Amino acid sequence: MITKINHIAIAVQRLSDHIPFYRDVLGLEFRGVETIAEQKVRVALFGVGEVQIELLEPLSADSPISKFLKTKGDGLHHIAYQSDDIEKELIRLRSKNMRLLDPQARPGAHGSKIAFLHPGSTGRVLSEICQPAEGLEDKK
Amino acid sequence: MITKINHIAIAVQRLSDHIPFYRDVLGLEFRGVETIAEQKVRVALFGVGEVQIELLEPLSADSPISKFLKTKGDGLHHIAYQSDDIEKELIRLRSKNMRLLDPQARPGAHGSKIAFLHPGSTGRVLSEICQPAEGLEDKK
Repeated sequence: MITKINHIAIAVQRLSDHIPFYRDVLGLEFRGVETIAEQKVRVALFGVGEVQIELLEPLSADSPISKFLKTKGDGLHHIAYQSDDIEKELIRLRSKNMRLLDPQARPGAHGSKIAFLHPGSTGRVLSEICQPAEGLEDKK
Repeated sequence: MITKINHIAIAVQRLSDHIPFYRDVLGLEFRGVETIAEQKVRVALFGVGEVQIELLEPLSADSPISKFLKTKGDGLHHIAYQSDDIEKELIRLRSKNMRLLDPQARPGAHGSKIAFLHPGSTGRVLSEICQPAEGLEDKK
């Protein structure tokens, strides 16, 4: 079952150009910058209510974010929906004929499990399902 | 002060093509379809945690959504941040050199007050500030 929006991801050329808007102008809770090598991105994290805003900067030219930036430029990249049981969720989604970019849940940051749905099945909005590591499920 | 994400808006050519994904596949709480004549859109509303997903279909060719769809196609359109005092928020944002598409808060749906920030000041992510009508502030 999907319980909430976990995060909204925004693709950017350079984190440092965008951090001031979210941290200083909007005044969101800045949670730091992390490198996620396996996804080839650096991420700046901001809390706002129960949702996290994540700015994604590519680490290299072959990062999926580089490809996105090349065709679309800086902008909204994907929505991540939080599930309390991602394996069950993926079985349910498959039973509804959803195409999955990740047929199995794969490891995300901080022990989470994640899977992306195929944009061809979601009306062109890139959508992720994620399940935080136990204990991190609900910080609020 | 910004307290949470109020909604995430997605521009679509036709609501009926997209409602099944959010309602039946993701299983979000479907809250119905509304026409907002002054913004020239029909909106389908879905609840997920404290956030609302809003699908926006243009009512006419001169709707701002029509222009977006023409250049970008269906996809993520804007993020709306909820403020507990939009007038104060706009003064604060202006003091930080933010450009505003709406220099004053204007009426939104259901007695809310809304204002859009200029994408040139927000790193190209269309961003809205909104304050729900009193009493609707926190349905959760």
